[in-house]
Amino acid sequence: MKVIVIGGSGTIGKAVVEQLGLRHEVVTVGSNSGQYQADITDVAQVRALFGKIGKADAVVVTAGALAFAPLAEFTPEQFRVGLDSKLMGQVNVALVAQHLLNDGGSITLTSGIVAEQPIRNGAGASLTNSAVEGFARGAAIELPRGIRINVVSPTLLDESVDAYGPYFRGFETVPASRVALAYSRSVEGAQTGQVYKVW
Amino acid sequence: MKVIVIGGSGTIGKAVVEQLGLRHEVVTVGSNSGQYQADITDVAQVRALFGKIGKADAVVVTAGALAFAPLAEFTPEQFRVGLDSKLMGQVNVALVAQHLLNDGGSITLTSGIVAEQPIRNGAGASLTNSAVEGFARGAAIELPRGIRINVVSPTLLDESVDAYGPYFRGFETVPASRVALAYSRSVEGAQTGQVYKVW
Repeated sequence: MKVIVIGGSGTIGKAVVEQLGLRHEVVTVGSNSGQYQADITDVAQVRALFGKIGKADAVVVTAGALAFAPLAEFTPEQFRVGLDSKLMGQVNVALVAQHLLNDGGSITLTSGIVAEQPIRNGAGASLTNSAVEGFARGAAIELPRGIRINVVSPTLLDESVDAYGPYFRGFETVPASRVALAYSRSVEGAQTGQVYKVW
Repeated sequence: MKVIVIGGSGTIGKAVVEQLGLRHEVVTVGSNSGQYQADITDVAQVRALFGKIGKADAVVVTAGALAFAPLAEFTPEQFRVGLDSKLMGQVNVALVAQHLLNDGGSITLTSGIVAEQPIRNGAGASLTNSAVEGFARGAAIELPRGIRINVVSPTLLDESVDAYGPYFRGFETVPASRVALAYSRSVEGAQTGQVYKVW
């Protein structure tokens, strides 16, 4: 298979590239790195990206920004960070991919444990991650030509404890290599409309 | 209690006003109707609204627009309809209410069955309704002064079958009066971070 990994230089993305690279041709995309560059918050850039890469069998997105703040101080503009980036960035990829992936292809997006298990400062993450999961449930029943869509919901990574550990006290962490298996399961399995929780 | 019902002239809103009005002082708000007018997609108008109404014990939102379209034709702009209106409108109310409701007050928002049970043309509804539920889960753990937040997720109303029945073939419908009980349960109960499914 030819698999596009958007966000391939991040902690999860690198693990996904390593896992899928064992068996497939992987094309990496980043905002400033990878084999191709694109800002997926702009649907026109997503269209141009798929045009440059050509036919592919799967796309994985492990990219997207979120804002964190105490609820008492959270502004609508801070909620927009996640809506514009982690949510609509991924939605844009799915909207374009449904037309351009090969028959039987797959779209795999990324949410996160905070969708269901809230943390302080995380209202934007709970909102955005839940929205990604809802989108995939909705889109799954309308995708054409056997194209599937799933979401991977990782918990905090072992590799991210130094950066985010204080926000996730008591949460069990997992290595990025284990999270990468869930992307493999989505890309190489046969289910659709699923949320694969790695926690 | 003094309860603000935003969207009090809609099918659900009228039933909520009737149910809560049996025991409480109800203040109705609409974009163009009700005792007070406000466009809740503008957080400044939400702030001004609460300033005009003064202290209250609960706020219920039954307002919000969504766009429906086949996934193959859904545009990012159409997803923005739900994000701007049904999602951020309700988030704006919660962000303001956390500071202005009385101690022990409550915020009750509205999602919908399509968050979990997708329908054709409903990817925007699945996304938006899931986001509302995620926001409430996230916000619940940070609200101050005993303030609670819950979401009511209605299925298709008996009263809406003429308008939306073709999109919901095979779904059991419920009267708005039954949905109104879930809002009562949220306002007059003691739980927080819950999604009350009326289906």
